[in-house]
Amino acid sequence: MTSSSFILKGCIAFSEGSKSIVTYRGGYVVCVDGICKGAFSEFPKRYENLPLVDCKNQLIIPGMTDLHVHAPQYTFRGIGMDEELLEWLSKYTFPEEAKYSDLSYARKAYGYFAEDLRRCFTTRAVVFATLHNEATVELMDQLDKTGVITYVGKVNMDRNGGVGLEEESAEASLQATLEWLEQIQGKYTNTMPILTPRFIPSCSDELMKGLGKLSAEKGLRIQSHLSENQSEIAWVKELVPSSTSYANAYEIFDTMGTAELPTIMAHCVYSDEEEMAILKKHGAYIAHCADSNMNLASGIAPIRKFLDAGINIGLGTDVAAGSSMNMIKTMLISLQASKMYYRLVDADVKPLSFEEMFYLATMGGGSYFGKVGSFKDGYEFDAVVIDDSKMYSMRDMSVRERIERMVYNDADAFITDKYVKGNKIYSSAE
Amino acid sequence: MTSSSFILKGCIAFSEGSKSIVTYRGGYVVCVDGICKGAFSEFPKRYENLPLVDCKNQLIIPGMTDLHVHAPQYTFRGIGMDEELLEWLSKYTFPEEAKYSDLSYARKAYGYFAEDLRRCFTTRAVVFATLHNEATVELMDQLDKTGVITYVGKVNMDRNGGVGLEEESAEASLQATLEWLEQIQGKYTNTMPILTPRFIPSCSDELMKGLGKLSAEKGLRIQSHLSENQSEIAWVKELVPSSTSYANAYEIFDTMGTAELPTIMAHCVYSDEEEMAILKKHGAYIAHCADSNMNLASGIAPIRKFLDAGINIGLGTDVAAGSSMNMIKTMLISLQASKMYYRLVDADVKPLSFEEMFYLATMGGGSYFGKVGSFKDGYEFDAVVIDDSKMYSMRDMSVRERIERMVYNDADAFITDKYVKGNKIYSSAE
Repeated sequence: MTSSSFILKGCIAFSEGSKSIVTYRGGYVVCVDGICKGAFSEFPKRYENLPLVDCKNQLIIPGMTDLHVHAPQYTFRGIGMDEELLEWLSKYTFPEEAKYSDLSYARKAYGYFAEDLRRCFTTRAVVFATLHNEATVELMDQLDKTGVITYVGKVNMDRNGGVGLEEESAEASLQATLEWLEQIQGKYTNTMPILTPRFIPSCSDELMKGLGKLSAEKGLRIQSHLSENQSEIAWVKELVPSSTSYANAYEIFDTMGTAELPTIMAHCVYSDEEEMAILKKHGAYIAHCADSNMNLASGIAPIRKFLDAGINIGLGTDVAAGSSMNMIKTMLISLQASKMYYRLVDADVKPLSFEEMFYLATMGGGSYFGKVGSFKDGYEFDAVVIDDSKMYSMRDMSVRERIERMVYNDADAFITDKYVKGNKIYSSAE
Repeated sequence: MTSSSFILKGCIAFSEGSKSIVTYRGGYVVCVDGICKGAFSEFPKRYENLPLVDCKNQLIIPGMTDLHVHAPQYTFRGIGMDEELLEWLSKYTFPEEAKYSDLSYARKAYGYFAEDLRRCFTTRAVVFATLHNEATVELMDQLDKTGVITYVGKVNMDRNGGVGLEEESAEASLQATLEWLEQIQGKYTNTMPILTPRFIPSCSDELMKGLGKLSAEKGLRIQSHLSENQSEIAWVKELVPSSTSYANAYEIFDTMGTAELPTIMAHCVYSDEEEMAILKKHGAYIAHCADSNMNLASGIAPIRKFLDAGINIGLGTDVAAGSSMNMIKTMLISLQASKMYYRLVDADVKPLSFEEMFYLATMGGGSYFGKVGSFKDGYEFDAVVIDDSKMYSMRDMSVRERIERMVYNDADAFITDKYVKGNKIYSSAE
């Protein structure tokens, strides 16, 4: 047994599926060599030789997966929020990302991102960098050290990037991608590369096709954006006139992925039956980014429909259009969004239950990384220990009530310890 | 000059009207005997004898007004959020409020509420208690000591309250109200009574009429709820069949108030042209409670329409249907709500700008208390000093950008000092 074998005792909550949350008060969750051996209401005697960490009355939940976050946007989160997508990109985002040509700028800014990622509820993340190779390697170096498990993408964009944020040609962009992959080959424990065409308006047909080919050849996954905003969708239709939908445009370029190499598509606010069928057929993941979609007035994605259709789905903070990396705040806003979709758009599309939202934040997104996001036997041991004792109550709350309260009011939920694959990567006692 | 005369130096932001925010970096704001003498970019020499408090690079903004909050619901905030209004009231709220017949229970629970109110961005609040006189006086005793300026209402409800939360008759409810008013007569510096018929489903016609009469006779203001949820509205139509609208029902009972004694109506999610005309005619205030309205899937109030129509409006947290007393979180959710109303309901109703939302949280609601919510000359000096230095950035942000960032990401904005009428009522250094 290595040092990543132990038992945590405390108030445990986790999903086994989307419909219910399993809870134990004063329960036990077992980690052996970084793998969860299950959660138990009684002390599991067969593991009695393992060290026991008594978390007392604290909450113990699986770590969360952030399926969509832009690292270089982190330090300007929360401003420019009166704009919509395309204006926000050109006024705020692209000029900021252009600064990452400067490695010393990137080193400092990514330091803020990496440290805050280490401290938040997220144990797995799928990250956009910028188009700059040096800065992207710097980000990967820093993220690898945090212990959070990540996919990171050097961004591809050979058109419409504006001053200082455009690669010279499809060929140059593909060449830079190959160089980046070579540079990081075998370098990391926790960090993996992912191909990252920003979105179709940023990538020529030739570049898209090249990335689709590269994905298949090298066995690399892809992440991008899909159907976030109506102006964007109209633009894509102009740019790829032969496509029957935005999702079909990705399909045309062989970038929609496969069940083995699933593509992540952020947003899908306006994805209709055709797009849903395409996403499902390819085993793609939807990164639902409700905070971002509200902030940029994009709209609300019909996640109940996606769930019911059996499409893979998880949550994304989408910093900086989302203004926080806090996944429990993202859960709250996603719950409110699903309630408003039901109330304002379609009364036949019921809001997500709290159970379903907790599932999305943990197992839903986690499944992109394999057996991740639950305390079921055999899952990788990602866990967050939370002190909510400053949130005074007059009643003896159940564990289920306490995790709901934490999500609806994140202000008084403090992370004490965070584990990834059984390794403690953050402690408030540091 | 008393001790409540001083100058604060720092990064100042305040509204003068709804369309713009005045900011000074390294500016000065002057308080003389609890009254603001204005904000200045240069040191105001005529006040050179006043003590200067250098808040360095911290933000200094006016205190905020919470126009609608339920004190007895505070300690169960954040649970039961998968329900809609009427179910939530009967399953969670009414059973909880019934417990306030026990004074020792109330004392402890109101202690949590009062202390957290003292520590948050709110400097003025309009508060629902329960129907219990003793507990309501206990709440007022505690609130008076905090220094936050409040209106507090003993709740009237003589029907549909369920077990333990219903007064025996209209007469008994009115009699209890008179006794309550007598008990607190002349007792407080910071706390004032307000008549509080819960909402029409809770109050018989006779009780409503009696409260309308009492308001006029004693010069007392009224607060209640209006048009929050469609099932509620249908119920009111049954209960007051002669009314042309829910607002008209309040009008029939003379409880809609006057410009001198403005009534506060929480919610107004479904207020149409007729209700808007009634609210405006009476000089009533709308307490916009977006967090609550999303949580209970009630809908989104068209606050742009209310603003444009010149109806008085401010923000309410509506704890516990709203899950936090944090006004800057309420601002964020209200901004997101106004963006979704625009996107999903009516594209002719533009989202509120950040400037407009800041105005609502400060001056909009503050005007209910008189000259409150601004640093204009002559305003009562309510201020919050905020340390946002832990929110690292790569750019030299303007004061305007910093307050927007604080609202979109409240996690890293820490209150250092809070002043009400020039008295410091909270300091993080305590």
